[in-house]
Amino acid sequence: MTPPSPLASRLGFIAPFHVMSLLEQARQLEQQGHDVIHMEIGEPDFGTPPAIIQAGMAALQAGHTGYSPALGLPALREAIAEDYARRFGVQVPARRIVITAGASGALLLALAALVSPGKEVLLSDPAYPCNRHFVHLLEGRAVNLPVGPDSQYQLTADHLAQHWSADTVAALVATPSNPTGTLLSAEALAALNTAALARGGRLIVDEIYQGLVYDQAAHTALAQSDQLFVINSFSKYFQMTGWRLGWLVVPEAYLNAVNRLAQNIFIAASTPAQHAALAAFQPDTLSLLEQRRLELKSRRDALLPMLQQLGFRINSQPQGAFYVYADSSTLAGDCEALSARLLQQAHVAITPGIDFGQHRAREHVRFAYTVPVPRLEQMAERLRKVL
Amino acid sequence: MTPPSPLASRLGFIAPFHVMSLLEQARQLEQQGHDVIHMEIGEPDFGTPPAIIQAGMAALQAGHTGYSPALGLPALREAIAEDYARRFGVQVPARRIVITAGASGALLLALAALVSPGKEVLLSDPAYPCNRHFVHLLEGRAVNLPVGPDSQYQLTADHLAQHWSADTVAALVATPSNPTGTLLSAEALAALNTAALARGGRLIVDEIYQGLVYDQAAHTALAQSDQLFVINSFSKYFQMTGWRLGWLVVPEAYLNAVNRLAQNIFIAASTPAQHAALAAFQPDTLSLLEQRRLELKSRRDALLPMLQQLGFRINSQPQGAFYVYADSSTLAGDCEALSARLLQQAHVAITPGIDFGQHRAREHVRFAYTVPVPRLEQMAERLRKVL
Ligand SMILES: Cc1ncc(COP(=O)(O)O)c(C=O)c1O
Ligand SMILES: Cc1ncc(COP(=O)(O)O)c(C=O)c1O
Repeated sequence: MTPPSPLASRLGFIAPFHVMSLLEQARQLEQQGHDVIHMEIGEPDFGTPPAIIQAGMAALQAGHTGYSPALGLPALREAIAEDYARRFGVQVPARRIVITAGASGALLLALAALVSPGKEVLLSDPAYPCNRHFVHLLEGRAVNLPVGPDSQYQLTADHLAQHWSADTVAALVATPSNPTGTLLSAEALAALNTAALARGGRLIVDEIYQGLVYDQAAHTALAQSDQLFVINSFSKYFQMTGWRLGWLVVPEAYLNAVNRLAQNIFIAASTPAQHAALAAFQPDTLSLLEQRRLELKSRRDALLPMLQQLGFRINSQPQGAFYVYADSSTLAGDCEALSARLLQQAHVAITPGIDFGQHRAREHVRFAYTVPVPRLEQMAERLRKVL
Repeated sequence: MTPPSPLASRLGFIAPFHVMSLLEQARQLEQQGHDVIHMEIGEPDFGTPPAIIQAGMAALQAGHTGYSPALGLPALREAIAEDYARRFGVQVPARRIVITAGASGALLLALAALVSPGKEVLLSDPAYPCNRHFVHLLEGRAVNLPVGPDSQYQLTADHLAQHWSADTVAALVATPSNPTGTLLSAEALAALNTAALARGGRLIVDEIYQGLVYDQAAHTALAQSDQLFVINSFSKYFQMTGWRLGWLVVPEAYLNAVNRLAQNIFIAASTPAQHAALAAFQPDTLSLLEQRRLELKSRRDALLPMLQQLGFRINSQPQGAFYVYADSSTLAGDCEALSARLLQQAHVAITPGIDFGQHRAREHVRFAYTVPVPRLEQMAERLRKVL
C-alpha cells in the first residue's frame, strides 16, 4: 500500500518546463538517426573560453577544492568590482558583491531577503519562467503583468504605479530580457527604481545577459542607484553555464540578511568555478568574448529576415541576449502544437511561448540563435517546407 | 536619505553561524603571525582524492561545461545506484536519485516538496543548524526537540509519537550526526520511518557522513524503506566540499514534484563536478578513502581521552562523522566565552554549542578532528595550559 504523500501547497504553482518534453522527443529523434537543429536551450554553443578552462584545471591541480567563504572568494568579488569600474565606470564596493550558484542562486537570495508569505512581486508576462516559481517557492505572490511591443515587452514605471499594492515588495525586470531580447534604457531603469523606492519597495534587475547587446553599448542598472538588487551570472556572456556561478549585487541595508541566507542555504558557491572565473576578466578572454558577441549579432541579423519571410512576426526588435520571440499567430493557432510539429516534421527544436507566461503565450515561440548562420539557413529551409 | 528596506519576516528566524566571528578572529590572529589550530570547520583536511581531481580536469579539457539535465547526469545517477547495490546490497533505481548542489541542495528540494507554510518539521536539538533555517526559509515551523545522551542525541520513534501534531509533515534525522557523531541503528531508522508514515508524514534521513563510521559497518536507511527521503553528498566521505555536489533519494510519489523544483530553483548541478564524481567510485579511490577513514578513526581514538583528561565530558560515544560534542560545563559556564578564550589564549578554534541549537547548548562545544594526531596533541597541550 502506498502511504500518504503530503505535498507542499507551492507545488500547485510550480509548473514544469514544457520544452523538456520537446527535448525528450528531440533525443528520441536523434537516437533514430535524425539530425535535430537545437534552438530551444538558453545556452551559447561556443563552450567556455579556453583561458577559463585552463584556470579551472589549474585550480583543481592546486587543490582548491575546499569550501569558500559564504559570500565568495574575496579576489573574485574584487575582480567583479573592478570590471564594473572598467567597463561601465561604476563604483560598486566588492563588499556588496555576493558570489552565488548562477543567477539562479542570486534570484533565490534576493527574493528570500525581500518576500514574506503573501507579499507580491511584480513581473512581466512573458518573462523567464523561474522568476514566478522562485516567488511561489518563498510563498509570495507573483503578479504577472501582461506586456507587449508597446513597452518592448518590459515593465514600465507606469506598470508599477498601476499595480503596486500594499503587499508589493519588489518588481523584477531583466535587460536584455528572456524570452524577448529587448532592453531597458538607463532612463527606464531609473524610473523603475524611483517608482519602486517611492512605494517602499525594491527593484531587482536581472542583468544575466549583460554584454550581449548588438546595437548599442552595454550598461548596468548600478549606474542609476545603489539601492537596487542586480542579478548577474557567468553563464551567458562568459559562457560558463554548467559551472553554476553567478553573483548578486546587494544594497548595503541587505548585506547582513543576504549573508545569513547564503551561509545557511548554500554554504558557498563552487570553489573551482570561482578560481576559474578569475580568468574571465583577462584581456584575451574579453576579446574572445567580443568576437563571440559579434558572431551572435550576425546570427541575429541573419535570423530576423528569415523568420519574417517564413511568416513569423517580430513585434519588437530583439537587441540583446540570443533570443527571438516570434509571433506565430498567422502560422498556427497554438504554439505548443506548432513546436511539436516543427520538431516532428522539420527536426527543428524551439520553445513554445507557454513556457514564459500566459499573456498571448500560445501565439508565440522563442528561437535561440545558438547555432551558426549556415545552420540557421538550413533551419529556414526546413521550416519553409512544412509551414 | 536611506529608503525603506522591506525585509522578509523569515530573517527573524535565520541566525548567522556564531563560528563565523571566531573564524574572523582566527584569521586576524594568523595575520599577526600566530599559529591557529583549526578544529571548527566541518571539512576534512585531506583534499579531494587525486583520481577525482584528474577526472575533473579531464572533463574541463573535454569541454563538459554546459548545463546538465536538471536531475543530473544519467551516468552519475547510475553510478550512485550501483554503489548502493555494491556497498549496501540495496536496490535503488537511478530514476529516484537526484543530483544536487551538495546536501544543501538536497535539503532544500526535500523540504520544499514537503513543507507548506505553518507546517511542522521535527528536528533534534542539537542538530546541523541549517536544517531549521531551511524550514524557516520555506515558512514552515522547525520543532526543535531536546535530545541528550539517553537517546545518543538522536530522535526516537517516541519523540515522534509525543510531538507529532496535526501540522507535522516530516521528521529529519542525521546518521552519523553533526554535531554529535552518533548513529541511528537500522532498527531505530525503521521505527522512525514507521512512526512518520503511520502519521501521514515522511522521514528524511541525512546520510551526508555515510561511510565515516568507526566501530561498525556503514549502512543506509534505504535498506528499511523506499518511502523515506535520503540526503547525501560528495562533500564529506568523498571530500569534495568545495565542488558543491550531493544527491537526494526521492520516494516515487515525489519524483514529479522534485523534478519541477530542481528545474526551477537550480537548473542543474555543476557539470564538471558531476563528471569528476564519476571517478569517486573507482576501486583505487575507494581504497584511498578507506585509508582516510582509518586515519579519522585513529584521530577520534586519540582525541577522546585527551578531551576527557582536560575535563570535558563525552556523554555519548561519537561513532561517526569527525566531530566530538563535548560537555564543557565543569570547565566553563558558557561555551561562547570558552571558545573565545581558547582561541585567544591557546589559538585553538572550536565551535560553540549555540551554533547547533538551544538545549544545553551553552554547556557544549564541538571539536572537529580535521587535523592529524600530532596536531591534536599540540592542541591538548595548549588547552592544558589555559584551562
Ligand atoms: C533571465 C534569466 N535569469 C536567470 C537565469 C539563470 O541562469 P544561471 O543560473 O545559469 O545563471 C536564466 C537562464 O536561462 C535566465 O534566462
Ligand atoms: C549534517 C549536515 N548536512 C548537510 C550539510 C551540507 O553539506 P554540503 O552542502 O556541503 O553537502 C552539512 C555540512 O556540514 C552537514 O553537516
